[in-house]
Amino acid sequence: MSAPGPVRVTVWGENRHEQHEPAVAERYPRGMHGAVAEGIADNLGAGAVVRTATLDEPEHGLGEEVLAATDVLTWWGHAAHAEVSDEVADRVHGHVLDGMGLVVLHSGHWSKVFQKLMGTTCTLRWRSERDRELVWTVDPTHPIAQGVPHPIVIDEQEMYGEFFDIPAPDELVFISSFSGGEVFRSGCTFRRGHGRIFYFSPGDQDYPVYHHPDVRRVIANGVRWARSDRPRRERPALLRSAPVGSAPGHEPGGAPGPGRG
Amino acid sequence: MSAPGPVRVTVWGENRHEQHEPAVAERYPRGMHGAVAEGIADNLGAGAVVRTATLDEPEHGLGEEVLAATDVLTWWGHAAHAEVSDEVADRVHGHVLDGMGLVVLHSGHWSKVFQKLMGTTCTLRWRSERDRELVWTVDPTHPIAQGVPHPIVIDEQEMYGEFFDIPAPDELVFISSFSGGEVFRSGCTFRRGHGRIFYFSPGDQDYPVYHHPDVRRVIANGVRWARSDRPRRERPALLRSAPVGSAPGHEPGGAPGPGRG
Amino acid sequence: MSAPGPVRVTVWGENRHEQHEPAVAERYPRGMHGAVAEGIADNLGAGAVVRTATLDEPEHGLGEEVLAATDVLTWWGHAAHAEVSDEVADRVHGHVLDGMGLVVLHSGHWSKVFQKLMGTTCTLRWRSERDRELVWTVDPTHPIAQGVPHPIVIDEQEMYGEFFDIPAPDELVFISSFSGGEVFRSGCTFRRGHGRIFYFSPGDQDYPVYHHPDVRRVIANGVRWARSDRPRRERPALLRSAPVGSAPGHEPGGAPGPGRG
Amino acid sequence: MSAPGPVRVTVWGENRHEQHEPAVAERYPRGMHGAVAEGIADNLGAGAVVRTATLDEPEHGLGEEVLAATDVLTWWGHAAHAEVSDEVADRVHGHVLDGMGLVVLHSGHWSKVFQKLMGTTCTLRWRSERDRELVWTVDPTHPIAQGVPHPIVIDEQEMYGEFFDIPAPDELVFISSFSGGEVFRSGCTFRRGHGRIFYFSPGDQDYPVYHHPDVRRVIANGVRWARSDRPRRERPALLRSAPVGSAPGHEPGGAPGPGRG
Repeated sequence: MSAPGPVRVTVWGENRHEQHEPAVAERYPRGMHGAVAEGIADNLGAGAVVRTATLDEPEHGLGEEVLAATDVLTWWGHAAHAEVSDEVADRVHGHVLDGMGLVVLHSGHWSKVFQKLMGTTCTLRWRSERDRELVWTVDPTHPIAQGVPHPIVIDEQEMYGEFFDIPAPDELVFISSFSGGEVFRSGCTFRRGHGRIFYFSPGDQDYPVYHHPDVRRVIANGVRWARSDRPRRERPALLRSAPVGSAPGHEPGGAPGPGRG
Repeated sequence: MSAPGPVRVTVWGENRHEQHEPAVAERYPRGMHGAVAEGIADNLGAGAVVRTATLDEPEHGLGEEVLAATDVLTWWGHAAHAEVSDEVADRVHGHVLDGMGLVVLHSGHWSKVFQKLMGTTCTLRWRSERDRELVWTVDPTHPIAQGVPHPIVIDEQEMYGEFFDIPAPDELVFISSFSGGEVFRSGCTFRRGHGRIFYFSPGDQDYPVYHHPDVRRVIANGVRWARSDRPRRERPALLRSAPVGSAPGHEPGGAPGPGRG
Repeated sequence: MSAPGPVRVTVWGENRHEQHEPAVAERYPRGMHGAVAEGIADNLGAGAVVRTATLDEPEHGLGEEVLAATDVLTWWGHAAHAEVSDEVADRVHGHVLDGMGLVVLHSGHWSKVFQKLMGTTCTLRWRSERDRELVWTVDPTHPIAQGVPHPIVIDEQEMYGEFFDIPAPDELVFISSFSGGEVFRSGCTFRRGHGRIFYFSPGDQDYPVYHHPDVRRVIANGVRWARSDRPRRERPALLRSAPVGSAPGHEPGGAPGPGRG
Repeated sequence: MSAPGPVRVTVWGENRHEQHEPAVAERYPRGMHGAVAEGIADNLGAGAVVRTATLDEPEHGLGEEVLAATDVLTWWGHAAHAEVSDEVADRVHGHVLDGMGLVVLHSGHWSKVFQKLMGTTCTLRWRSERDRELVWTVDPTHPIAQGVPHPIVIDEQEMYGEFFDIPAPDELVFISSFSGGEVFRSGCTFRRGHGRIFYFSPGDQDYPVYHHPDVRRVIANGVRWARSDRPRRERPALLRSAPVGSAPGHEPGGAPGPGRG
């Protein structure tokens, strides 16, 4: 039960708006992924080692070695979900099932990876017209909710509203309201396989939300929470099993393929 | 709030063991799907209209018109999960999100449809050595648990044990034990999109479990529960939305594709 | 599995504001309990038999015979929670554990009965300044959410906001927003013992909310949902138990008192 | 986000069997509370400061100052639940709502404190006839499940079986089976107010279960998990609240008593 080393974080960003829209580039001079990474590093200090990866890198910057060396991956995409290759989406999905933590941000709700993990459409109601968002804590005991005001006030933000087509979350941490009267389950946790997933909706290319100190704190808390406590990464597997206490020679064999006896 | 008509049930069966293994054919002379269908019809009487469909029919018997006319689909497959076409699996998945009920039986845990809805491997621990299974009710208020003893005793059955790699169920209705000492979350509900899903593990080709009156009762209860209360089938969709109460001319437009503004 | 008879509903109302405040009496000429009862009767028609009971009746109108003949009790109280006798609160609590359904309305969140069932303070944030409340459905598959718009619009209402100190609900059906920016888990289900509980927050003495057709529809849906499927009312009990399948002579005895062997 | 100091643990034991039954005294020479305390200290090392308190001390050893200085309380009682004063039970209940962690062990399921927090009877099925208990992990991502085998094997133990009359747990971590065929939700978490609660059923006066290394590890894990992340202890309270962003002079006042506004 010794203290683990720093959490190894990979911040993934689509990095397209920053290239094509000067206003976004000005808002996020080091990219949106840069702002997210900075927020994590600032909050976790020596408790984290943070790198970034983006869509246009080979394998979107998410090769097998990168993922194997990542404790927690954060995901932001928006305009180019369809350009993420199925191979990389499957690889990320697999690593989450093996135990990699995943923090899905804002429009990442519609990514291949999140849809594949949820099994639903992950659709929602939206509007980008400078709503004020208030983020209220509904699980004050949750580690992700520590250190932020109740509510968090975000002066200008895209509206995300219900119905948000996700499975009922394992834990509902935050609920947001918007100027237009909408509500949204804005902070949700899920466990899938051996992995922990945190979805957090605040954040957008058109507003400086990833510079907001409370939003950064929540993302950093989410990273710490999503890190697995398990000693090694491993996929849950089909297992043929002998009765407990039976003779060793009778022990479980490996998992046969589909159509097993 | 008038009473709805009879629930329209389609019982899907892989129907391969029955063809290739005389012992299975003898155990289930009208097919395993036949036994499941009979159990539902016996329990629901005039409250259900039941038909069957199998793997070797065109489109596996699950064409668009069949699914559109199905309130609840039950699914049993085992040896040939891989032979279910992706197109049909996607179609079934879509109908569940639209509001079709789904009852997944036993080895259907490893079907494409169930995996796609769960987002996990759906693997488990198993052994086919005539274990006795006891099915205990842990949610005595649940409609699916009505009318059966506590526990249900199944004299001979395949063992399914934990860890069962599924998302935490919305409701845990039954937990089973086996002679070998294993436990299993054997009755679980999930909501996905507009659809309700019930997974129930008892049932196997090598044991006469689908003739067991309590197992049949639970499956029939599950069918009634899984039927949607919604007036029509509809997929949750991305929706651009005006503030509540804003001028009609400002009303929500349709949902743009990925990469929306 | 024959259709059950009409649900027997007792609508409990504190009935104090109506006596002391002319504005409330004018708003609710047959009492608030009268308006709630009317809404249930209108929506359920021949499917319900509705009576009312109030604080100032002997035993608050909730004697043993009344509760024994009640399938679902609805509860509204506000100014006089402390005047409800412990004996009656304990009796209601016991009947819920036995299987009576309970629908707790608005300020009933702070009643002895609800606190006793929840185990928490049931406190919240509030303001009575004519906020507009919007009630959004977050579980569109739930029977309680059927037949109402998304959102329900309540033009004038008391604000109830988070943090609402309740256990995480079994099912979260509705989330409300208010003009002041607050959010609230306004429709929640809980199972306790053999009973089902629905909490629904809209409704107040100072606003005509119990005349609102959508609010009445939700309460009626809640009544239908809260009715037990179990054949008889019975308290969960401590039970000394023989191994399953052991000799009949070895069968479970009764439940000894605390300090059992 | 600096590392917190050692967790301050108070291990509460009824300490009656040890005095009246020589076999128990021999099995647990430093008392059952002594064995539990030792297991926590051994596992958490410098990460915990552990003390004990027992029924026969003044205020059962649980005066206001003791609880105020306790991060996590563990509770074992059996023969003398009724002798715990209502005042102390209320005090402990209040501290949990304020944020003190609580680990309830075995027959503590029937304590006043646990019943008050759950709102249900907390009854179950039982038998003390040297069953073998197997404890299976069903949430492998949970911190409480780390470092123990799957299953934990307890050679001799009292049987606790379903139906266990508790609210559906927030997280179900362990399920046990017994030689007699019963199952039990043996590791459950709950959040109430600002407090975290872990119930763990293995452990009994008649078997040496609190010397079992895996059981000790789980209890120690539970203690670490139950400790609050909140900076100070505070009861959730009724709060009159101004709209977010309104003028400071309009700010929330205190919480009036029942019958407010």
